[in-house]
Amino acid sequence: MDIHFRLATEGDLDSIVYMLADDVLGSKREKYEQPLPESYIKAFHSIKSDPNNELIVACKEETVVGVQQLTFTPYLTHQGGWRATIEGVRTAASVRGQGVGSELIKWAINRAKQRGCHVIQLTTDKERPDALRFYERLGFEATHEGLKLKL
Amino acid sequence: MDIHFRLATEGDLDSIVYMLADDVLGSKREKYEQPLPESYIKAFHSIKSDPNNELIVACKEETVVGVQQLTFTPYLTHQGGWRATIEGVRTAASVRGQGVGSELIKWAINRAKQRGCHVIQLTTDKERPDALRFYERLGFEATHEGLKLKL
Repeated sequence: MDIHFRLATEGDLDSIVYMLADDVLGSKREKYEQPLPESYIKAFHSIKSDPNNELIVACKEETVVGVQQLTFTPYLTHQGGWRATIEGVRTAASVRGQGVGSELIKWAINRAKQRGCHVIQLTTDKERPDALRFYERLGFEATHEGLKLKL
Repeated sequence: MDIHFRLATEGDLDSIVYMLADDVLGSKREKYEQPLPESYIKAFHSIKSDPNNELIVACKEETVVGVQQLTFTPYLTHQGGWRATIEGVRTAASVRGQGVGSELIKWAINRAKQRGCHVIQLTTDKERPDALRFYERLGFEATHEGLKLKL
């Protein structure tokens, strides 16, 4: 399949939020409606104006079929190394099982190398065992526990 | 113990890197020497110049006895919610077991609320079972797997 990747624009937001909501866990916490809740638009502009955040879409011809957010963070640890974090990876139901997810992650790995990161990381909900295997196949190792506290 | 918290300055770097290196896992990957490797100083300035990153030190009188880095990230997920991430939490050997670690994390939780985050998160190496219990006692839940890929 011929997939290309680019930075998301505001015009992609509708497709992106649709994908975020069209998901077992996302359906409980997202709100896809017309017009889109203002909070998504505000977050989009916060991401876009931050040079250390990139919202990436995968496109099949002109159609958005995947999304992920990359965050690049300078840390003191590892002798002052930068890390890349992947979050919010989703693919459209219409292309599931066609390798778009793998292509997204491979793109993220290359982008993280370009940005000089020494590691790329992500967390995946323990309720998504298939996602864990997917990332392990791509070379990630589940060396850490991922903890959250709702505020 | 009377502990106060503030943003780290370049003058704190020596104490901070000493703490990062004086650790079971850190001793394998950090490099504490005089003068400090340039990479730490460069990372410090990258953190300092990023409004979404805060390097926080805990001080007992004038002595730095703890450190952590907070990163605030805007995401589209959770209806465009901001998250806080804690990384690189260390306390000085001289105060271990005196609650400085808990105070650091409680400070981070309050700071994340001030910044309008809906969740605060971190990952902890599975080789640190004590750290996992420490965070669970503070209310964090290990709902996620934390995956890394070295680049």
